[in-house]
Amino acid sequence: MNMQERNAIYQLAREWVLEAGQAIRKRMNTPLTIETKADANDLVTTMDKDTEYFFMNNIKKVYPDHLIIGEEGYGDDVTSLDGTVWIIDPIDGTMNFVHQKRNFAISVGIYHDGVGEIGLIYDVMADHLYSAKKGEGAFKNDTPLTPLPDSKRFDEAILGVNHFWLCENHLVNEKKMQELVRTVRGTRTYGSAALEFAYVAEGVMDGYIAMGLSAWDIAAGIVIVKEVGGVTTTSFGEPINLLQSASVLTCNPVIHERIVNGFMLKGRK
Amino acid sequence: MNMQERNAIYQLAREWVLEAGQAIRKRMNTPLTIETKADANDLVTTMDKDTEYFFMNNIKKVYPDHLIIGEEGYGDDVTSLDGTVWIIDPIDGTMNFVHQKRNFAISVGIYHDGVGEIGLIYDVMADHLYSAKKGEGAFKNDTPLTPLPDSKRFDEAILGVNHFWLCENHLVNEKKMQELVRTVRGTRTYGSAALEFAYVAEGVMDGYIAMGLSAWDIAAGIVIVKEVGGVTTTSFGEPINLLQSASVLTCNPVIHERIVNGFMLKGRK
Repeated sequence: MNMQERNAIYQLAREWVLEAGQAIRKRMNTPLTIETKADANDLVTTMDKDTEYFFMNNIKKVYPDHLIIGEEGYGDDVTSLDGTVWIIDPIDGTMNFVHQKRNFAISVGIYHDGVGEIGLIYDVMADHLYSAKKGEGAFKNDTPLTPLPDSKRFDEAILGVNHFWLCENHLVNEKKMQELVRTVRGTRTYGSAALEFAYVAEGVMDGYIAMGLSAWDIAAGIVIVKEVGGVTTTSFGEPINLLQSASVLTCNPVIHERIVNGFMLKGRK
Repeated sequence: MNMQERNAIYQLAREWVLEAGQAIRKRMNTPLTIETKADANDLVTTMDKDTEYFFMNNIKKVYPDHLIIGEEGYGDDVTSLDGTVWIIDPIDGTMNFVHQKRNFAISVGIYHDGVGEIGLIYDVMADHLYSAKKGEGAFKNDTPLTPLPDSKRFDEAILGVNHFWLCENHLVNEKKMQELVRTVRGTRTYGSAALEFAYVAEGVMDGYIAMGLSAWDIAAGIVIVKEVGGVTTTSFGEPINLLQSASVLTCNPVIHERIVNGFMLKGRK
């Protein structure tokens, strides 16, 4: 994708994200209709669905050949990343949305032939738009984000991690996770993968680890973190495949190496 | 303390908190001088010290007979809560302050003969002042906070807890903590005890558990949470003694009972 095409798509995507966010803010005080999906933790609201539909509808009108992967299922049945693919989480951090009425985000990542071209993460209630275009740096609203520091002491790092991965589970060795928690300076949990990627890009956290994430949780974040010099892989240091759910580790490269080599022994125990 | 006295003290305390906050915001862009106390996690900055000194100085001028307990050591050597005692954390969430330049708070609790009379928690960068006077409700800036709900399903609760208590430690049974994490809907870690109390009062979290906290971390929060119908005890359900470091559990009374009875077996293992 050339710069001109990328810019044209970015302008529209940004406009739609801001418009969708404004609509959500307006409706925040009306009662929510909450359905329960398979997992009680996995809430879906009417706003979630409406927002994804809004994107789908707009994209298909302007770019009928673009494909869409969306959390709520209005997208296409995408089996490869050939061509231009929009990867959308209309409301990332649904639990925050429902319980806190803040700390959730619209996440839109746009990929071309598998390469991340555009990332937009919009903290709707705070009105903070984190954005990036490939090779053009990352921004928080109109302010450029600073490149991540070249050196970072591990015992001064703050990591984002969900408490669940310190309990016995099927995806990661919890003893190693506990050791990691005790080695770094501090840990945080904000409840929105997209925002936690944005915080890593902003330098507010030095890394973020999560298990079982899907493309829509991370597609935008990968692009934004990359533009400040950060890396995103699976927790074992392998490349991310956006077409399957995976563990994710996004951070400063120095921290990344320490975590992968020191703590993320592959497989259980 | 009668209402008139309480109001007079409140007006001054509020004014000083806002003034101190404004001074901190102004200085946020100048380089910090960071000293290391006993624990590398326990950072102290010059601003921390200056802010406590500012309070101490103002209080002693107007109320020479009031006592002060402060994190930075400018306060009095307080051995009882007789009389009027100001309990101050000039910057709660020092790690956030240093690493994030946001998500920290000034915390001021004012007690008379051991009774919480006034609580002020100021999220400095967000300019959110959580406040309460005994018997007069709690506020976020000028908006009254809603009383906590009478009923709350345990599997719909969001709890604030530090990851450290899910790892082997000397203060709490980590297996029980892990079980608790798996039972509730979700967990969060924001890195400032004062703000986590404020979030519980605001209903953004349903409870907050922490170990080894001191009076200045919790004195203001206890008053604010109480004004919306919440309770604060040790993690074993015992009354808090502000003169010694302790475990703390602040939350909705329904949630409180479930945690104390179901998960906080006293002592290790």
